[in-house]
Amino acid sequence: MTERAAVKAALKTQAVETPSWAYGNSGTRFKVFAQQGVPRDPREKLDDAAKVHEFTGVAPTVALHIPWDKVDDYAALARHAEERGLRLGAINSNTFQDDDYRLGSVCHPDAAVRRKAVDHLLECVDIMDATGSKDLKLWFADGTNYPGQDDIRARQDRLAGALAEVYERLGDDQRMLLEYKLFEPAFYTTDVPDWGTAYAHCLKLGPKAQVVVDTGHHAPGTNIEFIVATLLREGKLGGFDFNSRFYADDDLMVGAADPFQLFRIMYEVVRGGGLSGDVAFMLDQCHNVESKIPAIVRSVMNVQEATAKALLVDREALAAAQREGDVLGANAVLMDAFNTDVRPLLREVREEMGLDPDPMGAYARSGWAEKIVAERVGGRQAGWGA
Amino acid sequence: MTERAAVKAALKTQAVETPSWAYGNSGTRFKVFAQQGVPRDPREKLDDAAKVHEFTGVAPTVALHIPWDKVDDYAALARHAEERGLRLGAINSNTFQDDDYRLGSVCHPDAAVRRKAVDHLLECVDIMDATGSKDLKLWFADGTNYPGQDDIRARQDRLAGALAEVYERLGDDQRMLLEYKLFEPAFYTTDVPDWGTAYAHCLKLGPKAQVVVDTGHHAPGTNIEFIVATLLREGKLGGFDFNSRFYADDDLMVGAADPFQLFRIMYEVVRGGGLSGDVAFMLDQCHNVESKIPAIVRSVMNVQEATAKALLVDREALAAAQREGDVLGANAVLMDAFNTDVRPLLREVREEMGLDPDPMGAYARSGWAEKIVAERVGGRQAGWGA
Amino acid sequence: MTERAAVKAALKTQAVETPSWAYGNSGTRFKVFAQQGVPRDPREKLDDAAKVHEFTGVAPTVALHIPWDKVDDYAALARHAEERGLRLGAINSNTFQDDDYRLGSVCHPDAAVRRKAVDHLLECVDIMDATGSKDLKLWFADGTNYPGQDDIRARQDRLAGALAEVYERLGDDQRMLLEYKLFEPAFYTTDVPDWGTAYAHCLKLGPKAQVVVDTGHHAPGTNIEFIVATLLREGKLGGFDFNSRFYADDDLMVGAADPFQLFRIMYEVVRGGGLSGDVAFMLDQCHNVESKIPAIVRSVMNVQEATAKALLVDREALAAAQREGDVLGANAVLMDAFNTDVRPLLREVREEMGLDPDPMGAYARSGWAEKIVAERVGGRQAGWGA
Amino acid sequence: MTERAAVKAALKTQAVETPSWAYGNSGTRFKVFAQQGVPRDPREKLDDAAKVHEFTGVAPTVALHIPWDKVDDYAALARHAEERGLRLGAINSNTFQDDDYRLGSVCHPDAAVRRKAVDHLLECVDIMDATGSKDLKLWFADGTNYPGQDDIRARQDRLAGALAEVYERLGDDQRMLLEYKLFEPAFYTTDVPDWGTAYAHCLKLGPKAQVVVDTGHHAPGTNIEFIVATLLREGKLGGFDFNSRFYADDDLMVGAADPFQLFRIMYEVVRGGGLSGDVAFMLDQCHNVESKIPAIVRSVMNVQEATAKALLVDREALAAAQREGDVLGANAVLMDAFNTDVRPLLREVREEMGLDPDPMGAYARSGWAEKIVAERVGGRQAGWGA
Repeated sequence: MTERAAVKAALKTQAVETPSWAYGNSGTRFKVFAQQGVPRDPREKLDDAAKVHEFTGVAPTVALHIPWDKVDDYAALARHAEERGLRLGAINSNTFQDDDYRLGSVCHPDAAVRRKAVDHLLECVDIMDATGSKDLKLWFADGTNYPGQDDIRARQDRLAGALAEVYERLGDDQRMLLEYKLFEPAFYTTDVPDWGTAYAHCLKLGPKAQVVVDTGHHAPGTNIEFIVATLLREGKLGGFDFNSRFYADDDLMVGAADPFQLFRIMYEVVRGGGLSGDVAFMLDQCHNVESKIPAIVRSVMNVQEATAKALLVDREALAAAQREGDVLGANAVLMDAFNTDVRPLLREVREEMGLDPDPMGAYARSGWAEKIVAERVGGRQAGWGA
Repeated sequence: MTERAAVKAALKTQAVETPSWAYGNSGTRFKVFAQQGVPRDPREKLDDAAKVHEFTGVAPTVALHIPWDKVDDYAALARHAEERGLRLGAINSNTFQDDDYRLGSVCHPDAAVRRKAVDHLLECVDIMDATGSKDLKLWFADGTNYPGQDDIRARQDRLAGALAEVYERLGDDQRMLLEYKLFEPAFYTTDVPDWGTAYAHCLKLGPKAQVVVDTGHHAPGTNIEFIVATLLREGKLGGFDFNSRFYADDDLMVGAADPFQLFRIMYEVVRGGGLSGDVAFMLDQCHNVESKIPAIVRSVMNVQEATAKALLVDREALAAAQREGDVLGANAVLMDAFNTDVRPLLREVREEMGLDPDPMGAYARSGWAEKIVAERVGGRQAGWGA
Repeated sequence: MTERAAVKAALKTQAVETPSWAYGNSGTRFKVFAQQGVPRDPREKLDDAAKVHEFTGVAPTVALHIPWDKVDDYAALARHAEERGLRLGAINSNTFQDDDYRLGSVCHPDAAVRRKAVDHLLECVDIMDATGSKDLKLWFADGTNYPGQDDIRARQDRLAGALAEVYERLGDDQRMLLEYKLFEPAFYTTDVPDWGTAYAHCLKLGPKAQVVVDTGHHAPGTNIEFIVATLLREGKLGGFDFNSRFYADDDLMVGAADPFQLFRIMYEVVRGGGLSGDVAFMLDQCHNVESKIPAIVRSVMNVQEATAKALLVDREALAAAQREGDVLGANAVLMDAFNTDVRPLLREVREEMGLDPDPMGAYARSGWAEKIVAERVGGRQAGWGA
Repeated sequence: MTERAAVKAALKTQAVETPSWAYGNSGTRFKVFAQQGVPRDPREKLDDAAKVHEFTGVAPTVALHIPWDKVDDYAALARHAEERGLRLGAINSNTFQDDDYRLGSVCHPDAAVRRKAVDHLLECVDIMDATGSKDLKLWFADGTNYPGQDDIRARQDRLAGALAEVYERLGDDQRMLLEYKLFEPAFYTTDVPDWGTAYAHCLKLGPKAQVVVDTGHHAPGTNIEFIVATLLREGKLGGFDFNSRFYADDDLMVGAADPFQLFRIMYEVVRGGGLSGDVAFMLDQCHNVESKIPAIVRSVMNVQEATAKALLVDREALAAAQREGDVLGANAVLMDAFNTDVRPLLREVREEMGLDPDPMGAYARSGWAEKIVAERVGGRQAGWGA
């Protein structure tokens, strides 16, 4: 197989998981701008996700969020997905939207609140059993807003206890993916603020606990690809929540703010053997002002383009330049891949997969956008609260 | 008058404006935690604000937000305030919560949306005429989320046109206070992102246009007191929106995150003659997890404490050390004031004003919190959306 | 002329000024790693700069730094440049390396030090007269390290006085370019920390005073292209000091850290009419660990590539999408240009200019690197201190 | 023992290590401003350090830096220290100032450079044996400036190998303290950029390897006290390098930029049992524009004041408020301690220790400053390069 063929083969087997909540309404604390045609229930979210997969060919799974995607019959939901060529992906827990969680969930000072939160996490594992999902993705909004508000260390103890209980409940091929986030909604301390904290907890829990890197959850100036390389080296990279940011956790389309950074991240994934392993590639974005489905299609394409460029890096030439200490030469090898226009290559990949080479255009021409605007009238649009 | 007496006199005449919306519910994009006893209408907000003034003695005015505080009879609202020892303060506009404003308001590409937004601003001046408010405070959520989304420069032209039209409408003793903010809700460009942009517009508009410094609206590392000193030197500091932050626009209680910074800001205010002039000292905060009225009392006290310390700086000794290039000596003069425990002084000030020396305790003992929880049952709690 | 021809024509007339000091040794506070073959005097710097111009065709001028490039006979130096196809560019002042400047230069509390600093600036204008340079570039390291160390406002007064005196001395076609910088070497306040401060001073001085944007001198998260668009709109953008950064003022090769940002900046330049006007495009970089001349060649090429992409933006399609509020469509127009591989186009441009299409390779093959290592033996290598 | 007596007892036994290099000249990449009276050799540095201890009573040890403090006879140097009431403290390695280290030391692509670096580290352990020092403090300037310059993961492998070899060499009561730093002098990747990386390496090495928190080495917005609490919980906090910062690694006097942060850090130390254990409290600062010895005295006092406030926190009241979820109450308990003026208490502590209650004044009156200016004439002043 030629190198170009190998690159194309890798691109054809890539999989990017889209999140059910990105199909619903979202916004900032100031305003949620509702859009027309937005799904009213989990099935309609899957219908939209099926379109993303239909036109990109590499978005076969959909992450669910509990309780936003709570249904009575998960088997039926899974069948609904399968009928559209999809599978249900990671189960995302929610321990931040009940009034009880004002001061935290698994780290709350009150044991009763912690119990409730852990029970929700255990219920999520039950749902995984029903859906066949392999990954439990945990993000905790826990933290404090004011110095002194709670005891930093005691909260870590409570967190460790909760995680251990949930870890015990996991089945043999189930994983716990622990997400970290610098801040928001907590503004003084966050209980899992950085990869180090997530890593330390996962290490103690065991091999089924791994770290999720959300690309928008770091302090300014953080070198994310370094973290990716380090976690892969430690065998502790569970997956990505992709999105992009200029400021805080902006949740813009992945690759929109800094495509070079996304390329560097994907290069470390490729270099560290993460492309063909168990690393989950998930989107976690908000489409507050732009059309949702096309934004998700574009995001999947952005991941593909970054991956294609990462795969095109001439690693032998790079290694040689690095060995020789040729700073400019090594940098040039990397930049040569980044500067390559990979869109023609990806068009070929799509054609070979039997897809339209232009997913954005194909979606636009499909009439789906008009159809859902016309048909999804009445009911309550899905959003972060539902 | 001794120096101590002069400091106390200055503290007695200080005035901190509290914002009507801080008495209502607020939260993050993830969740608004409702609190018991929260006001249901503008009058109840004023009732709460009256308690803050009653126990601190230095919070005599309340900022209104239109349309959240829209009423049929502003004269009656003003009387309601006066009967409680209050006056109505700045009028705050809202051009970010209508569906039309998805892509901006006064900077929107569509002239019809801009017209609507300007009309709202003009209506705010009408309300100022009715309430007797002197200040129109403008914050624009305008901006873009993606590179290319709109033309940066054209948006500035539109902004300039809108501001000019509103400026023309201002009465002789009315001011336009233009607020800047780095980001949020826009995540790529904000149309008034920094003091330089606000300053440039105000300069062209004329003397009735001035800049508002919101202490939470800067990039990490920005030296806010430098901006304060510079704007005072230019005669363009219109006021403050006080709050504090560790990360982004956290909107925590002023002085909670970095009391030393607040002291440095207040020192520049004192040094630049801003304490006795037209600078408006306003709070603009969210009390998402803490009790609202006590949090506002505490915030007013934090401003008082920072001001007291700033007034205690031995300016002659400071100037002498600065002249001599005595770095450590000059710094020590400033730190000596900061390290002083000014709480006893402020207790004296309050006693001399006929107040309880302990505002937090006095409020707690007053029974107001229990009363509003008991009485404010039913109806719709005020929040950012109402 | 076809659009492609117009783009090529614009690229052929582009000019990037290289700084004499980038040819000498540089480093961090921890270590300056000396390189072999580094120039020992201003003439040898010009010899190296001539190579950059020889292989890129768009680097015809060289910025000087006084006193690092002080010579007895500037006319002779100018002739040395001309004989190599170069002209002398901006004169950069240095008011930060004398022991007197420990607490500042033009903002120093001691009038004698201020006098010395202003005299140096006036001397720089004398040198401009001798070299025919049009631009005086002013960067002040002035600031303080500790709160209270000096009076922020008094320092602004001193700054204004110094600038006014130098402004008066400028000839009819000479400009003063005022650079701002957030921090370093001052760590608490910097006297010209942001574009707003530089703009306010330039505005008062008059039309010959303009702002320089150094791409590495901003707080994290600052949107530099917004500043560029704003300064162009105000007619106050004097020029750029190009370099790139991940953290602070890293002074890496322009375009190395965030090529998408450089493209966005160049797009605003093109859109604001800055490409064909008086805006000076200068590099200001350090090559601490990489070979200097090739790094400068690469940097010039990076500016060219960003400019080419900016010129390729389909502005009609962009304007149409912006008018329609088509967020994804407008973004796609911009990204289409960014994602284009412009290296073939630039190879054509070079061939049409009679140059080797591969400047890096051509320089490597030229033998210049080996020649200067062999010949420049003995003497004292140029660096930031000489 | 009353609580006040317990606080005073704790303050009397506190120990802050001062760094030999802070007595010498330092600066930024732009300029090192030499000061009069600066030591010319390690003994003179110890003489100055003895003054800091003489007037503060809590600075009994001095950190050495190899090779800057290299001497022929370390036993003699230790005696010189003892005669002045001092002991030699941590040994700091230097693998960043030889020309070989341009591309790194223990992470360098060339095995020969790595060998040299490891040999230096082993030599530092030899010196520890000679001086009786317990701690080897490792800071690596290793990293890269450009994407692609070297392989991130391979560098981690090299780092791990080097650390393991040095760890093996440690004696039974010797520790390895591993410092992390976000950036500088490397501007793209740093090989130990954050606490997570340092922690992961220390965990694998074993109990004698611990993490050092340098308060200036974090990304903007990082919550340092969270890291401190977490490392104490993990038993992996080896010590502090104290200094303060507004922007990057400013190396200002500890407590100068954000005294509230220093207090919060010291509170977590107290709360986590770190005050009475093995945590090393070291200064690591630069006194570029201020007088060095008084700046170090002031810094030691700043640590004392923050510690005193931390000890004064009413931990029972705090725990009660935290248990009840009383956000404002818990915060108020913490703030009450912070707002206390502890200078009178510390004056008492000093008097009870037989010291002058005013260390700054006592030093100024001692005549030492004048004496060293008069006597230390000629020779070569110590600085970061010697």
